[in-house]
Parts: sequence; C-alpha cells; structure tokens
Amino acid sequence: MRTYLDCYACFMRQALNAARVATSDEHLQHAVLNSVAEMLPQLPLSITPPEIAQQTYKLVYKITGDNDPFRELKRTANQRALEIYPRLKAAVASANDPLLAACKLAIAGNAIDLGPTASNTSHHLITESAILTPLAVNDYPTLKQCIKKSKRILYLGDNAGEIVFDRILIEELRQVKELDISFVVRESPIINDATLYDALSVGLDRVAAIISSGSDAPGIILSQCSQEMLDLYYSADVIISKGQGNYESLSDESINIFFLLKAKCLLVASQLGVSIGDAILIKNGENQRRQALFP
Amino acid sequence: MRTYLDCYACFMRQALNAARVATSDEHLQHAVLNSVAEMLPQLPLSITPPEIAQQTYKLVYKITGDNDPFRELKRTANQRALEIYPRLKAAVASANDPLLAACKLAIAGNAIDLGPTASNTSHHLITESAILTPLAVNDYPTLKQCIKKSKRILYLGDNAGEIVFDRILIEELRQVKELDISFVVRESPIINDATLYDALSVGLDRVAAIISSGSDAPGIILSQCSQEMLDLYYSADVIISKGQGNYESLSDESINIFFLLKAKCLLVASQLGVSIGDAILIKNGENQRRQALFP
Repeated sequence: MRTYLDCYACFMRQALNAARVATSDEHLQHAVLNSVAEMLPQLPLSITPPEIAQQTYKLVYKITGDNDPFRELKRTANQRALEIYPRLKAAVASANDPLLAACKLAIAGNAIDLGPTASNTSHHLITESAILTPLAVNDYPTLKQCIKKSKRILYLGDNAGEIVFDRILIEELRQVKELDISFVVRESPIINDATLYDALSVGLDRVAAIISSGSDAPGIILSQCSQEMLDLYYSADVIISKGQGNYESLSDESINIFFLLKAKCLLVASQLGVSIGDAILIKNGENQRRQALFP
Repeated sequence: MRTYLDCYACFMRQALNAARVATSDEHLQHAVLNSVAEMLPQLPLSITPPEIAQQTYKLVYKITGDNDPFRELKRTANQRALEIYPRLKAAVASANDPLLAACKLAIAGNAIDLGPTASNTSHHLITESAILTPLAVNDYPTLKQCIKKSKRILYLGDNAGEIVFDRILIEELRQVKELDISFVVRESPIINDATLYDALSVGLDRVAAIISSGSDAPGIILSQCSQEMLDLYYSADVIISKGQGNYESLSDESINIFFLLKAKCLLVASQLGVSIGDAILIKNGENQRRQALFP
C-alpha cells in the first residue's frame, strides 16, 4: 500500500506523541516536529507508510536521545496480557471452534498499538467478548483449510502485549496438526513493536522459532529484511501477518498471506470497506478485490 | 493563545482538506502539503494559531490557484441558515430569556466551521434544542449586565452561515436597548469565514454596521488590522467575539471581551476545562483564570 496524503498529519501526530513520551523538553519535541516536517517533502508517496513511519520514529529517537521511549509501556503490555492469558486460554478451550476463537483474540490483541491510534487499549478491554464478536471480513474458513494443507508457517508479529494473544493462536494452530512455525519480530525497538526481548519475555520461544525480520521498520519492508527472513518468507506454505503495519507493507504482494488486524485508520478501513476498530481476517488477493470494490 | 505542537498535524490536515476542495489534482495537493511542511519550521510557536492558519491557507490558495475554495459551501451555509431563520426567531421570541436563547443559538451556529473540525455541521442540527442545552461556561449574567451599561458594541464575526445566528443575537441585543453595533468580517476569503459579501447576503447590514478587520487572517491579528478596526476595538464598551479563531487570537488580551464559541479542539477545550463540542460564553479574564485551573 502506498502512502496517502492523509498520512502526513498522522506522521506528525505520531512523532509528537513519541517525542512527548521520550522527553518533557518542548524544545526537543519542537525540533522533532521540525525535522519530520523537513523530511516529509523528501519522500515519495510511492513508498509504504511503514517506511515513512520508520524514518519518522528514527528522527524522534535521534533527537530525543531515547531509542526506545515505549520500553516501559511494552513491558507493562506484556505483563498485563500474561496475567489474563490463563483466563483467555480457558475461554478458547471452551469455544465451539477454538482455532477461530484464538484468531479473534489475536486480532483483538492488535488493538494494543501506540502508533496510528495513539491510544493504548487497556488490556482489560480485551476479553472473552472478542470471541463472540463477528469478524468484519472473515476468510477464516479458507485459513483453516489452508492450515490443514500446510507444514511451514511464518507468523509476522506486531506489538508487545499483542504477542501473548499470538501465542494463544500459535498454540491452537499446533492443536490442528504438527507445524513448523517461525515467529518474526523487529530487529530493534520501533514504536511498541515486539522485539526478541518481548518474544522471550512472554514465552513465545516455547511455541515457535523466533527470528528477526532484520529490520527495525514497523512493518515488513522486504528490501530491508535479512536473507534468513526472506528464505522463510518465500518458502512458507502460509504466512499469518498481524497488524496494520505489516498489512500496509505487504498488501500488494502476491503470496499466500492471511492478514489479521484491527482497522486503525480511515484509509485502511475504507480501502477494505469496514469501519475503524473492525476485526479483519482477510486472505491476500481478497484485500485487493475489496480495494477495487471500495476505491 | 500561542501555537502548540499539537497544532502542526492539524495544519497539515486542514491544508489537505482545503486543497482537496480546491483541486482534484493529487500532485497539486501533494505540493500544498510539502509547502506547508517546509513552512512550519520557519514559524515560531509564540505566534497564535490563526496566524499560522492564515499562512497555511494562503499556500493552499497560491498553489491550487483557487483563492476561495469554500465559496459554494459558504453560499449554501448562508442560504440554509436563512431558511431556518424565521423558525429560530420564533423560538427565541417565546423563550423565557430571549437574549440568552439568542446567545445560545449564536454559539450553536459556530459549529458551522470548515477549519479545525473539518466537518460541516448540517444546519438542520442547529435547532431549538440548542436553547435548552446549558452552557458549559456561562458568563451570560455578566454579559447581560454589561450590555445594559454599554453603548458601543463591536461584534467579531466568524463563519458564513453562522452569521445568520449572529444576526438573531444582534436583533435581540437591540431589544435590550439602543446600541451602536459594528460587525467585523474578514477582508477577503479565508477558510469559510464570513466576508462583506456574506454579511450583505444575509442582511446583517440592516442590523449592524459592517466593517472589515482589514486582514484575511481567520482570527483578529491586531497588528494586521486596519486603523478603523483598531479604533472601534479600543473604543467599544464591550466586544462580542465569535468562534475559536477569534478566541485563539485574542485570549491573552486585557480588554472587555466576551467569547462565544464551541470548543473545537482538545487544546482549547482542555484549556477551558470543557469537552469538545461544548458551548462556551466566557468573559475575558475568566478564560485566563480557567486556564490556570486546567493547565
């Protein structure tokens, strides 16, 4: 997905939000915004929003001297999600279709995002009720079929906290059949995206092989990825991609991807013909079909 | 009121909105945003938001070649408001306190704003119910006392459409006593702010002397005002200031002003300790006192 002009104001808002978390010095915050304002005209609209977001957050980190302003928020997010993990595991186990229930929870967990919405969803809002809420786009039957025929799964992680819900989904996938699952984290801190540290701290390494994308982009920019990541990407039978950043960076790919996300901005929501906040499980190709329907 | 860093993203959003109304050419819209992005770092935060908005919209007009993109929306706003004028006049006449009812309607009319909120409030939403809704900040008793002791009133207008509701308030003021009322419009088109053309087209000249501020700022920037405007400003017994732009540009003045507005952004709302959308009638000085209370 290319960047739209609407994204400019969003990048400014995100930069200010991150700068304010990193420092209380308004001069530094102002310098951040000025630098982002000076950078934006240098970048073409043809690149994806996560590529611009990556440059934006790097400016924040460079100018404020804090390369991980959301570290405490990420730790809290992981911890809070782990606290409700046993309860949600039980809810999934007692659901009619535990795999579908786990998909819905993993999507609900995507609400924990400090980027586009700048609102840190409280973890107590992610409850069993997510299991009862219908998906606004529901390619789950296709995903389920696809899993049955697959061996190698590449799971593209998104945010800290959210990865606990991903763990629940991965555990359910393993109930379906024996699978070889790799879970992708960011190479280094960006926004509140999960890194190796987060994956280890929620025990994801017990259920999947953790690998780095090789990049600190808040999405999967293939040109920035490591060879290891690319090998897994092109050899996976199915890719499960979490969140809007991964969606924005891979939505034009022609490969077997299922995108699981909450729509967080009007652009993505309207492209997919849904409302902001809606839960989406969409197969690659279907998103392009819907984009043609909702131009 | 100074400009805050939060305003940067808002200026970008406003510029895009206006550019899209002015042209469907995305290259021109992109050029507008790039120019605004390049301009923002040149401006100090010490100036008021309307001064930056003025520069922002001038860039839009210059680059798109349309110096009044909202002209049709302004005409429609005036026309629609005139259509409901007789009904609202009757509602005011039958109210317990017609002057208070007219103040509330004039504030409700301030919702017709294409700047900060970028949502054109439908005129049918401005109804008699506004008369029944309490003001979130209510200095009306002081205003009423003040009017009784006054002779010369300077009324600072804001938006097209809204000025029909201002007309109702001015007509009620004239019921209280004989007054010398001047109504201030912008010198030339800016956003959807009222100009002389709008004032004449809704018959405001029948109830007040129409004068230009001498500036096309979407607020009252005293250093840009004509001598005529300044003479009236400093000699008025009381000033009635409509809308957020006029508020932002005059909120630090120490002169007898009553601000009548809807709070349209989080910054102004939180400064005044109210919620977005709240109706405010506040005496100058009181706003500074509240700003100290809600820092």
